[in-house]
Amino acid sequence: MGQNLIFTNDVTAAIERLTATGDHNLTVWIADVNTARFAPADARLITIPDGDDNKTLATVTRVWDEMEHMGVTRHSLVINLGGGMVCDLGGFAAATFKRGVRFINVPTTLLGAVDAAVGGKTGFNYNGLKNEIGAFAPASDVIISTRYFDTLPIEEMKSGFAEVLKHAMLSDRSEFLRLLDHDFNAPIDHDDLLERLRRSVQVKVDIVARDPNEQGERKALNLGHTVGHAFESLAMQCGTPVPHGYAVAWGLVTEAVLSHLLLKFPSDDVHLLGNFVRDNYRDFPFTCDDYDELLALMRHDKKSRDGEITCTLLAAIGDYRIDQTAPPDDVTAALDILRDHLGM
Amino acid sequence: MGQNLIFTNDVTAAIERLTATGDHNLTVWIADVNTARFAPADARLITIPDGDDNKTLATVTRVWDEMEHMGVTRHSLVINLGGGMVCDLGGFAAATFKRGVRFINVPTTLLGAVDAAVGGKTGFNYNGLKNEIGAFAPASDVIISTRYFDTLPIEEMKSGFAEVLKHAMLSDRSEFLRLLDHDFNAPIDHDDLLERLRRSVQVKVDIVARDPNEQGERKALNLGHTVGHAFESLAMQCGTPVPHGYAVAWGLVTEAVLSHLLLKFPSDDVHLLGNFVRDNYRDFPFTCDDYDELLALMRHDKKSRDGEITCTLLAAIGDYRIDQTAPPDDVTAALDILRDHLGM
Repeated sequence: MGQNLIFTNDVTAAIERLTATGDHNLTVWIADVNTARFAPADARLITIPDGDDNKTLATVTRVWDEMEHMGVTRHSLVINLGGGMVCDLGGFAAATFKRGVRFINVPTTLLGAVDAAVGGKTGFNYNGLKNEIGAFAPASDVIISTRYFDTLPIEEMKSGFAEVLKHAMLSDRSEFLRLLDHDFNAPIDHDDLLERLRRSVQVKVDIVARDPNEQGERKALNLGHTVGHAFESLAMQCGTPVPHGYAVAWGLVTEAVLSHLLLKFPSDDVHLLGNFVRDNYRDFPFTCDDYDELLALMRHDKKSRDGEITCTLLAAIGDYRIDQTAPPDDVTAALDILRDHLGM
Repeated sequence: MGQNLIFTNDVTAAIERLTATGDHNLTVWIADVNTARFAPADARLITIPDGDDNKTLATVTRVWDEMEHMGVTRHSLVINLGGGMVCDLGGFAAATFKRGVRFINVPTTLLGAVDAAVGGKTGFNYNGLKNEIGAFAPASDVIISTRYFDTLPIEEMKSGFAEVLKHAMLSDRSEFLRLLDHDFNAPIDHDDLLERLRRSVQVKVDIVARDPNEQGERKALNLGHTVGHAFESLAMQCGTPVPHGYAVAWGLVTEAVLSHLLLKFPSDDVHLLGNFVRDNYRDFPFTCDDYDELLALMRHDKKSRDGEITCTLLAAIGDYRIDQTAPPDDVTAALDILRDHLGM
């Protein structure tokens, strides 16, 4: 994979160092309508519409056309400045233009920093399916900074934080406990948060390095997501979409319960996690009437096979097991416990 | 890269062995209107229109839509059955669908077998530019057979043979001399031709293995192509398109002359090559009035930089030098000598 990760709160200097050493004939920035303001005033800038609804082939072709128009060649450099959507879509556009132009990701959201920007997954939504078309293509460099987060809505901070929690659950109980003390209402402690990001991203990097194309171990990163994606899709169907990370937070609790039922994951940790999620992630109104639909959605997850519900579970914090089959009765029991815990 | 190459004239048995060992939930074939007849009668088949004019994003989306419709997943297998266009476009569609479905190339043309099917370049034409969008994505397996060639037009055999010649020029003078004895009017000797293909493809494989993403040494494979692409584009502009390999054949002679002028490539070998090309590749009517346009096209080649003409040249058969700058006067002189030799 060989991605160069830079953790800094002086992004301008980091980019200057990277572009000074490169032998590039042209540097082009890609940002969305919200993040374009973070680009340098003299940047050659491709501005795309924001949001998952615009993560489409039409936006990709617009980026290709503008790259062509600006004279981008294989010796150029693309800088993706934005959240997960910009990194995913801009990365795909760069990775496929003339069969690959070098690109750097500069995530501007917490979720982008700990998830989309690192690990080489690029793509766009197609035929109503999320990230249906894409490529495994790593950014050459990722610049991770908390400087963009001061103006992020608290909901977006919480959404990204769920992935930070997930990485700690895959690796390190003391980090997990430390994260549970996080106060979203306090002003951001940039140095501390950057250190938390450094640890969090390293967990992903280590796993991806061992399995870049998701043949096996990388599925560990799916923790919380088999159930989480089902929540996300159900909320979408009900016309009340929820942020990705909220669905992941509920998914993490549900899968922690499942881990307890199937792999004796300690109930103390289930409770600590459940309390944090109850206090910080507003409850998602679903009832036992929704269980059939939730189970059906889990069976159709990209990672599931042959109609079984497949997920990553934990025997303990840091001790993950991929490719676990969850019997429907246990999933139902876990959903009951989740609803109890969140006081629904 | 790790491509599994199979040289056989029993393609059916080879595919049965490959699909028997794989753990695939679905096998889908992609062919064009001419090669669909080579697919098994019970194949799930995506048929696309043929020809470079249809190597477009519209055809790619059609393939994605049919894959979706057929229920292709990451655990499926795609078999590209056709010439370079099918391998390039089908490979791109498979490599990007759900971020990558395993695919096998079964080239049905000589050009496809020695060029497009091997080495991992996939893509399609965009905004009038050849292979402008694409990815480096190797087929897991390539089945190379001469069984489809009996019904190939002689023009297509000659077009592919130019790439076979190129590979010999990059590697082995005795193979080069042997190829110059080839008689396109004789019936195909399948065993002999399969052995020539084995040697030819190995040259490409060895070079690509050392430089999969064309950072350096892979440019050796561009021999004959800086000048050849210019011929191809000029013929297109004049409304008299020529087969790719014909343009490459003329490009090989021109670059052999340039190699003689700049690197003392032996004139004997220039003459042997020139005679073979004169006898087998119909002459392309261009005059010295076209020189300015040809030079301009060479300067705009994907591999050229800063307005200079960059090409791969030979000090001798098997002794190639990438990134050579060719002064315009020498290119002009080489074009004069080519026209003389071809008797224009």
